[in-house]
Amino acid sequence: MHLTQSLKRALQLNPQGVATISGERQHTWTEFYQRIRCAAAGLLALGLEKKDRVAILSLNSDRYFELVYALPWAGLISVPLNIRLAPAEIIFLLNDSGAKVLCVDETFSAMLSEFKGKLDTVETIVYMGDNEFDGAVSYEDLLSKSETIEDTGAGGDEVAGIFYTGGTTGLPKGVMLTHDNLVANGLNAVHGFGFTKHSRYLHAAPMFHAADAAANIGLTMLGGTHVFVPKFEPELVLDTFVKSEVTNVMLVPTMVNMLVNTHDIDTYDLSVLVRICYGGSPMPEAVLLKAKALIPHVEFTQAYGMTELSPIITILDDEYHVTDGPKAGKIRSAGQVVLSGEIRVVNENDEELPRGQIGEVVARGPTVMKGYWNREVETAQALANGWMHTGDAGYMDEDGFVFIADRVKDMIISGGENVYSVEVENAVQKHPAVSACAVIGIPNDEWGEEVLAIVVPNEGESATDAHIISFCKEHIAGYKCPRGVVFVDALPTSGAGKILKNKLRDPYWEGRERNVN
Amino acid sequence: MHLTQSLKRALQLNPQGVATISGERQHTWTEFYQRIRCAAAGLLALGLEKKDRVAILSLNSDRYFELVYALPWAGLISVPLNIRLAPAEIIFLLNDSGAKVLCVDETFSAMLSEFKGKLDTVETIVYMGDNEFDGAVSYEDLLSKSETIEDTGAGGDEVAGIFYTGGTTGLPKGVMLTHDNLVANGLNAVHGFGFTKHSRYLHAAPMFHAADAAANIGLTMLGGTHVFVPKFEPELVLDTFVKSEVTNVMLVPTMVNMLVNTHDIDTYDLSVLVRICYGGSPMPEAVLLKAKALIPHVEFTQAYGMTELSPIITILDDEYHVTDGPKAGKIRSAGQVVLSGEIRVVNENDEELPRGQIGEVVARGPTVMKGYWNREVETAQALANGWMHTGDAGYMDEDGFVFIADRVKDMIISGGENVYSVEVENAVQKHPAVSACAVIGIPNDEWGEEVLAIVVPNEGESATDAHIISFCKEHIAGYKCPRGVVFVDALPTSGAGKILKNKLRDPYWEGRERNVN
Repeated sequence: MHLTQSLKRALQLNPQGVATISGERQHTWTEFYQRIRCAAAGLLALGLEKKDRVAILSLNSDRYFELVYALPWAGLISVPLNIRLAPAEIIFLLNDSGAKVLCVDETFSAMLSEFKGKLDTVETIVYMGDNEFDGAVSYEDLLSKSETIEDTGAGGDEVAGIFYTGGTTGLPKGVMLTHDNLVANGLNAVHGFGFTKHSRYLHAAPMFHAADAAANIGLTMLGGTHVFVPKFEPELVLDTFVKSEVTNVMLVPTMVNMLVNTHDIDTYDLSVLVRICYGGSPMPEAVLLKAKALIPHVEFTQAYGMTELSPIITILDDEYHVTDGPKAGKIRSAGQVVLSGEIRVVNENDEELPRGQIGEVVARGPTVMKGYWNREVETAQALANGWMHTGDAGYMDEDGFVFIADRVKDMIISGGENVYSVEVENAVQKHPAVSACAVIGIPNDEWGEEVLAIVVPNEGESATDAHIISFCKEHIAGYKCPRGVVFVDALPTSGAGKILKNKLRDPYWEGRERNVN
Repeated sequence: MHLTQSLKRALQLNPQGVATISGERQHTWTEFYQRIRCAAAGLLALGLEKKDRVAILSLNSDRYFELVYALPWAGLISVPLNIRLAPAEIIFLLNDSGAKVLCVDETFSAMLSEFKGKLDTVETIVYMGDNEFDGAVSYEDLLSKSETIEDTGAGGDEVAGIFYTGGTTGLPKGVMLTHDNLVANGLNAVHGFGFTKHSRYLHAAPMFHAADAAANIGLTMLGGTHVFVPKFEPELVLDTFVKSEVTNVMLVPTMVNMLVNTHDIDTYDLSVLVRICYGGSPMPEAVLLKAKALIPHVEFTQAYGMTELSPIITILDDEYHVTDGPKAGKIRSAGQVVLSGEIRVVNENDEELPRGQIGEVVARGPTVMKGYWNREVETAQALANGWMHTGDAGYMDEDGFVFIADRVKDMIISGGENVYSVEVENAVQKHPAVSACAVIGIPNDEWGEEVLAIVVPNEGESATDAHIISFCKEHIAGYKCPRGVVFVDALPTSGAGKILKNKLRDPYWEGRERNVN
């Protein structure tokens, strides 16, 4: 299968239909097709060869989406970068992926000066803004000065993109997703999200993330319309819903919560909005009830997955978003396996467990990644016995609904963003005053959870919480840094010497339920 | 992708749901799963090895459908045989495929005596009837005496089935369809046919044919219900619609015509019937109007394709089954390309033609066959330049609708069955009195077309039409044999010496439109 097939289908079925709406800019599928064929030619003319990597560091826009198609058309591999990372982290990813080109928008062009002299492989900067940028090739120039080229024919199990995930063991890993992976996910998404050729999808969650990308191929196959906002802001999203007649959107529950708490939400005409998909965590009952009261016609669908699964592996349909009746209780699950996938819960020997018993969730099928970029050992571990090991603990009920007990055992979900505790611990631990530390998630009314570091200081050393937090900000992205630091004499450990994070968490969660999906 | 994944999904999501209904027999997905795992074990215990071929010669039944899953579970390759073929043709297919096992039902066990001493590779006959059959292994015995085995893991581009098509050049060719082919078609079918987990599909068209098989994987993925009638009979089908609460069915237009002409159709409660899919030829307007008047709530979907495309490549949605308004006119088309496919119209150099211009229809994508079994030259021709050459002439309109001008140039469609004129001509031509002949389709009110042979006799020889027809019956299936023979002095030819069949056909079709899809 070929990622570009979806575009050819859109062009064939709906040539005059609207492909993209980004602010005041709008393109038909015919125009979009023309633009991406010029972009592909322009990129290759920079001296790139098939399978070279092209990184993207940008807020959401139609130009970002053009690259999603221009790169596979040219046989190049996309590397979408997490926009929340610190410059040092971005530099690591650019070097790790061996990217030859970095495409950057107005917002992130400010970061370029910090990269100087530190990039091992990047030869060209492409500037995606409207004007010129010193030392960079203008994206619009690249297009207007290029003739179109034909599809280079990349497809099948060739890598289409490398999507970096924060690794639980410290360094981020590049997840290699193939054309087959992404198209198979697209087919599952069309079914699971109920897209039609009339769908107008708002890209509101960051486009670097596989969760937003999940909608790319499927909606394009149908010749639907992609609408973009630079980033999630409740009023902007509500305005765009109305202005661009948006039918579908993908959000995290935190964003849904922000939307339904927008004070004048009832002044927006949301009658054409059909469905809100959400992922990252289950829908809190209170948020669902509030949303159902405000926008009762809108359907909710949960998608659960991970980048390594391209990314969707289970779907919870709207009909299970109820709090009474025979379907009640399913809302706390992550749903049932996607159309072409397989999922099961296994013990430590990879043997399937009986229904109801908690074990590790593993998955198989056409959306399982090819592997981690240049990480053979981690790839072999993750894909042991032919199944993707999610690292998530959960169980399955008699109807095939998967309940996640602990998303990754100790992962913290703050504002819909995954924070891997080990990564934070590694940063904290670099501080000379720190002897040992454990990082946990504690309740936060706005963000779901916030990051807390529990620190055992070195004898004779002392440091304030402010010191440690600002020290962390030099090493990792702000959203990953602890909001607070607690100093203790010792950490509770198991007989085998493993830190018992549950014991640390429990006092903070007393009387409330942690959203551990 | 694995054909068996669909079954595992059905079992996981709907273990107590009804999998199959065949007459008085009914099995849940749990029972079905148990049965096919025993059948797989029993088949392997006959001495079969992975990739061995197992042929099936049977009317429709749940046991046929069990083989559809037991064979890939065991890593075996299915060879479903056309039930309308003459014994000599069946013998050819069994030997050509190298089948080691032949599964045969009560109806076709009568043919076994004609096979004696003529089968080169078949070692075991499995009898699918209820009782014992001399010299054959009983299917139910095979199951009850076997323990279950685990999935052998066949999948991806391994061949799952060999489906024989009547070749236009004489001998039938075995189309090799892989697991990936059939699953990709299943995903397209779920979308195109609008299956849901509540769908109950009636297998009324013969199950050996890819057209019926098109529904197998997709419906199973959803955990829907498969209902079987041994063969198409209007009253039986209508009875089964009501009794088994059928929601979906696949028919040829001839069958739809028979249904709507059943005199007491209005006494059947068809309120749960959702959709009739049809293929093989476009829906005659008169049939559509009659059906819409009788069962206005039922949706119609046309599927166009060929065995080599697993088989669906275009779908005409219900909304285009109208005779006025902006969508009128599309009903004469074969619809638009399936979700994961590519289709185009090309000239003799495989260059894409502008919209509206007639050329050859070619297709690409995950449903394109692996090739013809042991026919490398024909495979290379059919798949030249990476596209499947359908042999159908047609054009595409501005909205991507494909209009087939001549399905295969001179193919005859009689009662929904394809009759390849060359194959019939080869048979007629063997008669000593025949000098030259051309076989064409002429109008028949019941069957759409009937086969007519136009014969130039050898000088000094003479033969009656009855002679020639009964001579043909010794060589080819009855439905392929001419219904009439016309004797002429010479056949009209082009400058290049090619017989002009249009000139022969025209007088018979004066004042009517031939359904040449």
